[in-house]
Amino acid sequence: MNNPPIMDYFREAAARIDQTMRRDLEVVGDPQLTEVLNYIIFNGGKRIRPQLTVLTWRLAGRGQAGDEQALRLAMAFEYLHVASLVHDDVIDHSVMRRGKATAHVSWGLAAAILAGDFLHSRALTLAGRAAGREGVELLGRAITAMVEAEFLQARVAAAGKSSQAEYFQVAAGKTGALLGAACEAGILLAGGSLSERAAGRAYGENLGLAFQIVDDLLDYLGDSAKTGKAVGNDLVEGKLTLPLLQALELAEVGDRARLEVILAAAPEARQACVGEVRELIARYGGFAAARGKAEELLEAGVLSLAVFPAVAEHELLSGLAAYVLSRDK
Amino acid sequence: MNNPPIMDYFREAAARIDQTMRRDLEVVGDPQLTEVLNYIIFNGGKRIRPQLTVLTWRLAGRGQAGDEQALRLAMAFEYLHVASLVHDDVIDHSVMRRGKATAHVSWGLAAAILAGDFLHSRALTLAGRAAGREGVELLGRAITAMVEAEFLQARVAAAGKSSQAEYFQVAAGKTGALLGAACEAGILLAGGSLSERAAGRAYGENLGLAFQIVDDLLDYLGDSAKTGKAVGNDLVEGKLTLPLLQALELAEVGDRARLEVILAAAPEARQACVGEVRELIARYGGFAAARGKAEELLEAGVLSLAVFPAVAEHELLSGLAAYVLSRDK
Repeated sequence: MNNPPIMDYFREAAARIDQTMRRDLEVVGDPQLTEVLNYIIFNGGKRIRPQLTVLTWRLAGRGQAGDEQALRLAMAFEYLHVASLVHDDVIDHSVMRRGKATAHVSWGLAAAILAGDFLHSRALTLAGRAAGREGVELLGRAITAMVEAEFLQARVAAAGKSSQAEYFQVAAGKTGALLGAACEAGILLAGGSLSERAAGRAYGENLGLAFQIVDDLLDYLGDSAKTGKAVGNDLVEGKLTLPLLQALELAEVGDRARLEVILAAAPEARQACVGEVRELIARYGGFAAARGKAEELLEAGVLSLAVFPAVAEHELLSGLAAYVLSRDK
Repeated sequence: MNNPPIMDYFREAAARIDQTMRRDLEVVGDPQLTEVLNYIIFNGGKRIRPQLTVLTWRLAGRGQAGDEQALRLAMAFEYLHVASLVHDDVIDHSVMRRGKATAHVSWGLAAAILAGDFLHSRALTLAGRAAGREGVELLGRAITAMVEAEFLQARVAAAGKSSQAEYFQVAAGKTGALLGAACEAGILLAGGSLSERAAGRAYGENLGLAFQIVDDLLDYLGDSAKTGKAVGNDLVEGKLTLPLLQALELAEVGDRARLEVILAAAPEARQACVGEVRELIARYGGFAAARGKAEELLEAGVLSLAVFPAVAEHELLSGLAAYVLSRDK
């Protein structure tokens, strides 16, 4: 996305997706539900998930389906994404998202839960319309993966320790599954084969995992003026992210014990140790290892798209992978 | 259901539906999600909604679909029902349901919200498998109606007044839509015509409205040892149910003003006035009018089934209507 034409493409495509969602939401009868949906959906998001559906649909040759049908299937993935954010904010008692009050703070608990329920249902309905029962199955599997990953994450957090395998399992369910499904859906709609669907899904899943890892890196290394989040927020919340897990694995006995003491401390105490932990992670190569893993995942993801012809969409999807790695917010 | 063979039929059918759900839930991988789902689903419910799907499917001649497929579509309606109860309990901060702690009290907020999300998704997936995109659309419409009715109900409650039209609109969305959809689904699966589907839906919607009205009557007139709820609970919560709305409409100026004073008072003050309000409702025929309305709805509902042959299922569905009217808990 350092390439301006690619950035322009993504910006215009996001605007078209927004337009499609605005038209779709005219089906909503209740005036307050409409207001809540507008509040939670239209916030300048990049619409990565629906973009993936449209791009993979083109990549796989479009099939019989028209542009409008692809957009309608695509927006189902944005609806699911928004629904999961709104319900997560309720669960985490979060008060801010993207610089404004969360839905349950602005509109109340009932409105937030019900708007999420509506979006789940609308997403599955749209998937059924555009891509029949296979489309519904695909979304259903992604939702199940997201829900199960939340349960696993809660267990890991309660245990206070995590393996890298658990880290990847949680990230695969929470982020990879939906991006993978968004890619697979475009190929399904285009009439692609099962192996083409698997290739698209692999790209999306890897993109999702890499996205999560870069998030973890930005949390320690990012510019909080750009990310909008305090540096070291994950440490304060006690989250065992990949750079930290890597350092815990490789640290010498004394440094490892020190990290464990910090992790066992109260959130305010951890807050004071962000700089120290960042140095320890750097000393044991945790940031470099995590970055290497993200690069590896993205490379493998892009490689799996080689089964498709080298059309323009190929380049856009590679560009998206490069953007995930280079983003600073 | 005073007829023992009919009661036996419904009990056995509920057991078969429970069996089908237990088998279906084996797809869940996460052990804690499984525990939460078992906790919220298996509580001795009568499974009215799935029973309706199976009965209407038989009534409309079964079509090409097998018994197993009908049961799998049927259980989607129980999943939706349970999901809405669990999310409603979170929204209402309810601590008890059916004599045990609510899901969010027993398992935490995250588990309750996520289990509901899973059930929504699973219900729509099952509907897609059994009845294709039309099945998904049908469930999607019911969920939308339920969500919009909750928003309307909140507005009515905030306004502190309600018309009978609003009362029926809320009840149609909260209870009628899902029962109507459960009936329509059976007929859809059997390959019934659009007019047959409409007839089934009308029966289900009326059954739902009547069910709600009888609930309102039991709240004032029921035996709390049987209903498991305190008499006058709706009044304490400030709910403007049909018997009360009828009385407010017909009461003489002084009595009406008295009712309005009570409604404007604090919950504890209203608690002390339950007996007085019950007498005023009775004086102005509120209970009789509400009961008459329920009878009328059930009669019209059963009548709409006349388009189907007079098979045994006809009798069971009439029996169910009679049960709704005669139930004391």
